Amino acid sequence: MCRWLAYSGTPILPMELLYKPEHSLIDQSRHARMGVETTNGDGFGLGWYAEPGDPDQWDGQPALFRGTSPAWSDVNLRELSGRIHTGLFFAHIRASTGSPVQQTNCHPFRHGRWMWMHNGAIAHFAELHRELLLAVDPSLYPSIQGSTDSELMFYLSLTLGLEHDPVHAVERMIGLVEQTADKHGIPDAMQMTVATSDGVRTWGFRYSTSRRSRSLFYSTDVNTLRRLHPDFAELREVSEDTRIVVSEPLGPLSGAWQAVPESSYGVVQPGDDEIHPLVPRAA
Amino acid sequence: MCRWLAYSGTPILPMELLYKPEHSLIDQSRHARMGVETTNGDGFGLGWYAEPGDPDQWDGQPALFRGTSPAWSDVNLRELSGRIHTGLFFAHIRASTGSPVQQTNCHPFRHGRWMWMHNGAIAHFAELHRELLLAVDPSLYPSIQGSTDSELMFYLSLTLGLEHDPVHAVERMIGLVEQTADKHGIPDAMQMTVATSDGVRTWGFRYSTSRRSRSLFYSTDVNTLRRLHPDFAELREVSEDTRIVVSEPLGPLSGAWQAVPESSYGVVQPGDDEIHPLVPRAA
Amino acid sequence: MCRWLAYSGTPILPMELLYKPEHSLIDQSRHARMGVETTNGDGFGLGWYAEPGDPDQWDGQPALFRGTSPAWSDVNLRELSGRIHTGLFFAHIRASTGSPVQQTNCHPFRHGRWMWMHNGAIAHFAELHRELLLAVDPSLYPSIQGSTDSELMFYLSLTLGLEHDPVHAVERMIGLVEQTADKHGIPDAMQMTVATSDGVRTWGFRYSTSRRSRSLFYSTDVNTLRRLHPDFAELREVSEDTRIVVSEPLGPLSGAWQAVPESSYGVVQPGDDEIHPLVPRAA
Amino acid sequence: MCRWLAYSGTPILPMELLYKPEHSLIDQSRHARMGVETTNGDGFGLGWYAEPGDPDQWDGQPALFRGTSPAWSDVNLRELSGRIHTGLFFAHIRASTGSPVQQTNCHPFRHGRWMWMHNGAIAHFAELHRELLLAVDPSLYPSIQGSTDSELMFYLSLTLGLEHDPVHAVERMIGLVEQTADKHGIPDAMQMTVATSDGVRTWGFRYSTSRRSRSLFYSTDVNTLRRLHPDFAELREVSEDTRIVVSEPLGPLSGAWQAVPESSYGVVQPGDDEIHPLVPRAA
Repeated sequence: MCRWLAYSGTPILPMELLYKPEHSLIDQSRHARMGVETTNGDGFGLGWYAEPGDPDQWDGQPALFRGTSPAWSDVNLRELSGRIHTGLFFAHIRASTGSPVQQTNCHPFRHGRWMWMHNGAIAHFAELHRELLLAVDPSLYPSIQGSTDSELMFYLSLTLGLEHDPVHAVERMIGLVEQTADKHGIPDAMQMTVATSDGVRTWGFRYSTSRRSRSLFYSTDVNTLRRLHPDFAELREVSEDTRIVVSEPLGPLSGAWQAVPESSYGVVQPGDDEIHPLVPRAA
Repeated sequence: MCRWLAYSGTPILPMELLYKPEHSLIDQSRHARMGVETTNGDGFGLGWYAEPGDPDQWDGQPALFRGTSPAWSDVNLRELSGRIHTGLFFAHIRASTGSPVQQTNCHPFRHGRWMWMHNGAIAHFAELHRELLLAVDPSLYPSIQGSTDSELMFYLSLTLGLEHDPVHAVERMIGLVEQTADKHGIPDAMQMTVATSDGVRTWGFRYSTSRRSRSLFYSTDVNTLRRLHPDFAELREVSEDTRIVVSEPLGPLSGAWQAVPESSYGVVQPGDDEIHPLVPRAA
Repeated sequence: MCRWLAYSGTPILPMELLYKPEHSLIDQSRHARMGVETTNGDGFGLGWYAEPGDPDQWDGQPALFRGTSPAWSDVNLRELSGRIHTGLFFAHIRASTGSPVQQTNCHPFRHGRWMWMHNGAIAHFAELHRELLLAVDPSLYPSIQGSTDSELMFYLSLTLGLEHDPVHAVERMIGLVEQTADKHGIPDAMQMTVATSDGVRTWGFRYSTSRRSRSLFYSTDVNTLRRLHPDFAELREVSEDTRIVVSEPLGPLSGAWQAVPESSYGVVQPGDDEIHPLVPRAA
Repeated sequence: MCRWLAYSGTPILPMELLYKPEHSLIDQSRHARMGVETTNGDGFGLGWYAEPGDPDQWDGQPALFRGTSPAWSDVNLRELSGRIHTGLFFAHIRASTGSPVQQTNCHPFRHGRWMWMHNGAIAHFAELHRELLLAVDPSLYPSIQGSTDSELMFYLSLTLGLEHDPVHAVERMIGLVEQTADKHGIPDAMQMTVATSDGVRTWGFRYSTSRRSRSLFYSTDVNTLRRLHPDFAELREVSEDTRIVVSEPLGPLSGAWQAVPESSYGVVQPGDDEIHPLVPRAA
């Protein structure tokens, strides 16, 4: 299992959220409270989109910085997260559920303009791996670099139309995994919280076959956060539509964080956010 | 802070103690119970002596295998600890108190026939580093490879006669550190549990200036262990003089583990073991 | 491309061959002379069999020590290769032809009692990967850990009977790869030197579709070596049936090394060695 | 020995110079032509200053990204060097002359606004280390993190006034090293090319006691470069005062690169560049 954070809003230095809050993502790398495992020390990743018009922007693709050391001791992560200004970033700390600790297994994953990160697992993945891999579009297949269920779920979703209708694609991906597991007599196949983005909108998914999904929270409106936490300096300067989606709250911010409901997804986007039920579909 | 284990007795595979017990050293790398920090993920080390007459023996020097990744995910550590038969080995998992995560800072340290590993810290070490380094014998100085207080304590002890009278040398090393700290107005300078060996005898030290030392335990006689734990298969085959010294017990073995008293040292050796008070001395 | 060395004979410390000769494998890691690339710095591996009757022996499986750093700077490789006595070992230094530098892509690979290492490449592997992966027996599929053509060639050979008839299996594996490449219009599909062993015999294969195979050499009988090189101390103590198979000679030992002929394989075994032509077969 | 590149001028992506030229720094990491060693695979570093007014700027300090893997295979270096726009950066690839391959030994080094990188060595450094370390100002001493001669030369120069008069400080640093070596009977003590910068000006030093210094080149004026190399696209868009200082030319750009004379230093700065003799001084 893992912990992750997705940020969308006024450009900030990721360091503000990764290191400074009381229960920051870095704190969660050693002392996660709501996960299956308190330690998330099997690698990390930071993915970010440049601002529109930024000369560093590269075809709209997000940038990635990923490593295999624990996030808490990575000197480069600390350095870079204090140097990069970005209005949309993903950060992930990994706790392997069996696949090797190597860079190609670190989240977020990237394909074109899209990023993807995951907390959870496909049950009995070793048994299902081959069959699920075969379901990936052969033209996408060579882009798979690692050996995780997480990356495979990304490529299955891309195969099933992620770039055109992300929600529908993820619902079909879940359906495909559950259906494949059924054939093998494997119950409770899917356990996932997932974030994905195209650089404009960010989707957060919470789902499990057993309806006992891993935790997922989003920040409520910034005005509430400001009233409750006048001392949280970073909040003063971000716009009202800034949102954080995170595996577990960054502090004891009562009232500042809301749980994403069981089997639901949310969309963070310009204009109103949305939360809807998530329904697996036959692939 | 860190966790460590020193084994002396019938040759075994280190894997038996590092991975198999309920609260093995590998379990302690993520879930230490008695340390300042639950996570010990900043590198690891295994040091071992070959058996007398072993063709792999190399001038009586212990062999070292050290790495910077967390012990729990290191594939090579798992592999090697299941391949090497040894009757005297040290194993260490590190939680950095500030110095970089790099191989040269991983325990155990080696000099000639001697090994050394440490849990604890010298208070305000950055402030004292230069002065303590100057106290190392210039002929030993070039052998220092890392930047930890732990390795420096080893070279101070070597300077003060470790190879001839280990207890006296460690007592003088403590005295020197406390004296230097005093000059700088630093209280409670020393916090340590240390193991050192020459390949025949193993010394375990427990000490802190404040007399609130980190935990240290040793296994009582093997017969007691066997009676209490008929299911612990490895115990059946080891000799009666086999001893384990460890930062925290490897399981809820009530009666099987005894705390080393505050400000004391023990010697594991052929013949009777010894436990004595430890008294800092003017260097 | 890569460089490798297979040793079979009187137990020695691998260090003797990896570090000491003038053009040792470690020297080849920076200054290969006969390879496509002079630098082989993308990881390394050492695999060895314990002696029969050795208490460290573990089900007849070889032990592995593999890492991603360049061999020339790996402190643990230097240490371990000077500590392990073995009469049958493989050593490999990697120069990636595209797949990531990660431990799961380091040679040798292991399955049960079998080891496998490779120098070369399957042409346009990204294009053929999926189809070749599908040809692996589904029961073997979950054992594949990395993403190299080398490991896949091993699992294809296992699928095609390596454990029962290694030569026939490798010939069919080559046939399968060439046939698959043909369908995709890819010429000169296979370029390989491969070593494999079951812990008793060692096979060395040299083959390429274009009949311009990478170099492969074996040591001639030890008496010749001794006469030619009275100063090579290690040779004095090894038995007459000791053999070394290697990508390029370990020194300018004129007369001491013979090239394995184009499209051939050799067997190092108790009794007479053999060299025969290698003929790809329809899988 | 090592290779390095210092860039000052119109903001570009470091990737343009690190990866694209025929004999780019990445090419030099495996195939250096003018160095003592063709392979520079013992770690790398990139240090850069943000543009004035850049919101990511952090107290005027340069940012660092350093790693221990070979530059040619580091996925993050490739990624980041294509994302960061900067008008003043240092890039370094390391070939260790003995000190461990670890991040704290990777160049460039940083202190406040200052960066420093080095190619070369102090002769018999192990013998001189202690005495030279003692000459570092005790208030600077705790900032030393690694164990290289290169970093120590930086801290000696800081001790001797680098921040106020860089040339005078480096001349005194050389004098101090040579004087210390003399006392130990060590000839030809210093071999160095060094770059240092405060974020505005960049100094390049070339010196050796024996007057046979490692190579150092600088680009001549951009107009000449453009005329000679109409195909070098990056040149079209950079300003006329853009300069590159580099251990060896990035291609066979005859006329485009000039050697820094023996025992000299150059200053790249707004306005006219300067080249002057370098004269060691008694510290």
